[in-house]
Amino acid sequence: MSQSFEQYRERRRREIDDALERILPIPPVCPGLIAETMRYSVFAGGKRLRPILTLAAAEAVSSEEDPQPPEDLPRGLAMPGACAVELIHTYSLVHDDLPPMDDDTLRRGRPTAHVAFGEGFAILSGDALLTHAFVALSQPRSGGGPDYERRQIRAVARLAEAAGAGGMVGGQVLDLNASGTGAEGANREVDADRVLRDMHERKTGSLIRAAAVVGGILSGGTDDTVDVLDRYAAHLGLAFQIVDDILDVEGTVAALGKTAGKDAAAEKPTYPAIHGLERSRVLARRAVEAAHDALTTMKTKGRLADIADWVGSRSH
Amino acid sequence: MSQSFEQYRERRRREIDDALERILPIPPVCPGLIAETMRYSVFAGGKRLRPILTLAAAEAVSSEEDPQPPEDLPRGLAMPGACAVELIHTYSLVHDDLPPMDDDTLRRGRPTAHVAFGEGFAILSGDALLTHAFVALSQPRSGGGPDYERRQIRAVARLAEAAGAGGMVGGQVLDLNASGTGAEGANREVDADRVLRDMHERKTGSLIRAAAVVGGILSGGTDDTVDVLDRYAAHLGLAFQIVDDILDVEGTVAALGKTAGKDAAAEKPTYPAIHGLERSRVLARRAVEAAHDALTTMKTKGRLADIADWVGSRSH
Repeated sequence: MSQSFEQYRERRRREIDDALERILPIPPVCPGLIAETMRYSVFAGGKRLRPILTLAAAEAVSSEEDPQPPEDLPRGLAMPGACAVELIHTYSLVHDDLPPMDDDTLRRGRPTAHVAFGEGFAILSGDALLTHAFVALSQPRSGGGPDYERRQIRAVARLAEAAGAGGMVGGQVLDLNASGTGAEGANREVDADRVLRDMHERKTGSLIRAAAVVGGILSGGTDDTVDVLDRYAAHLGLAFQIVDDILDVEGTVAALGKTAGKDAAAEKPTYPAIHGLERSRVLARRAVEAAHDALTTMKTKGRLADIADWVGSRSH
Repeated sequence: MSQSFEQYRERRRREIDDALERILPIPPVCPGLIAETMRYSVFAGGKRLRPILTLAAAEAVSSEEDPQPPEDLPRGLAMPGACAVELIHTYSLVHDDLPPMDDDTLRRGRPTAHVAFGEGFAILSGDALLTHAFVALSQPRSGGGPDYERRQIRAVARLAEAAGAGGMVGGQVLDLNASGTGAEGANREVDADRVLRDMHERKTGSLIRAAAVVGGILSGGTDDTVDVLDRYAAHLGLAFQIVDDILDVEGTVAALGKTAGKDAAAEKPTYPAIHGLERSRVLARRAVEAAHDALTTMKTKGRLADIADWVGSRSH
């Protein structure tokens, strides 16, 4: 554990990229055009926050159960989950950027998928990325045994629930509905905050929670440990979203790699719009602290505390 | 087994509708608008061919292993798979109908989802239906035990592979690419037939095969039995597609509940376009016979032979 968190993050990011490259389909299994479109969005220089969180959760859980786990074991067990989470995150960006949704043309400094490949192929590549998450998560693991299969099916259930109508897609529905309405016309801060929280807990929070939980499940965490990870990641998700809203106001296109000031232009409800910038910063800091507090009962926090600080301090 | 096939089909259709109603999310789990959009497409009067195939495969496999299985057991084991298959089929129709794809305004006699709810919500409801298939397939079954969990994760793997870039989505990519090109410009019948087959095997065939295979897996079929189901359903899928192409030429909007003559208008490669109507009918008949032949080694065929005849003779 002597390496810095930046070194750790960079190493995991490379491992995740390698794993994604290995599991994405290539011709002749699939047509070349869909393989290309999927890769365009997956390898666009993302931070890999969610899959790093999956691996860090798996590492923390493994050390919890066994103080000296073989170094690669937790990562090997959880990597399919890390890939699945990142594939679902990527699909959601591709579909959210489409003209009938956020109608965005720039993402991570490059043209969005529908600008580069056309709307039809962008929709299909999103569909394929979402579906492939469940391919990744359900592959047999040699020597895995019935216990690992039980973990896999629990991970599928948790990830699908987080991504679906009750989670991420539901949040995007609320977002689409809220644009231009200033939080459904709510004019008091407390109402607006409630609406905003519900939307973000679904749209962003549920997948961040699932990322941590899936890591805990696949590496064999007990129900109690998985619950701790879930609570930690719920605070983490809130911090992430508040910081995201602040960056949309303060950031530049160059730093963000995407259009800045979009939320205000679309009259979307955001933390700075409802609470102001200064109070939003306080709320973000509190959410990071709450994430730390949630870890108190864990014997080994591994990199989870570092990740909370990272989320609270990111500038793009 | 004394009831007619029509009675059997109708009974299973009702049971499947009930099961779908039970598993689809409702508020407050998800926003009301997404629940409504999902239901609009799921309960549109479909034939439920694929989920009936899943249940019939499960029944045939159960009788294979045990001549007197408790009547409801195979259906209970396989129903989550039947629902998952139908949810994926429904999502594919919603997305295929979108303006950047087939741009269709009529489906099963009603406005398509994007006409009724707008493009953004149609895309999101398709995403939610696809995701919910994996929620359905991964729910714990009381008394299921590790053996059922192993079957579930195998079913997830098989269904996700069938639906993704290498299967259904890949087929739609080829379809989107082929429109207006007359099978990528191929001008000889044999080349055109090869291109057409590859597209249909992915776009339609892979999900029909997965429907039968998932039924076999969830009800505990051996690898050999599941292989038999797979071969049977591959022929069934081919028969289905040829008949579909013939109906697009011969059918009326009233009988089909969707726009007729679309394929020719879009210059899509079809069986009648390449082989002519008469020879297409011969090819469909041969595919139905091949489906029957594939069942020869099964001790109990259950309703699988009836389903092959149904697919060969359907008029809408």
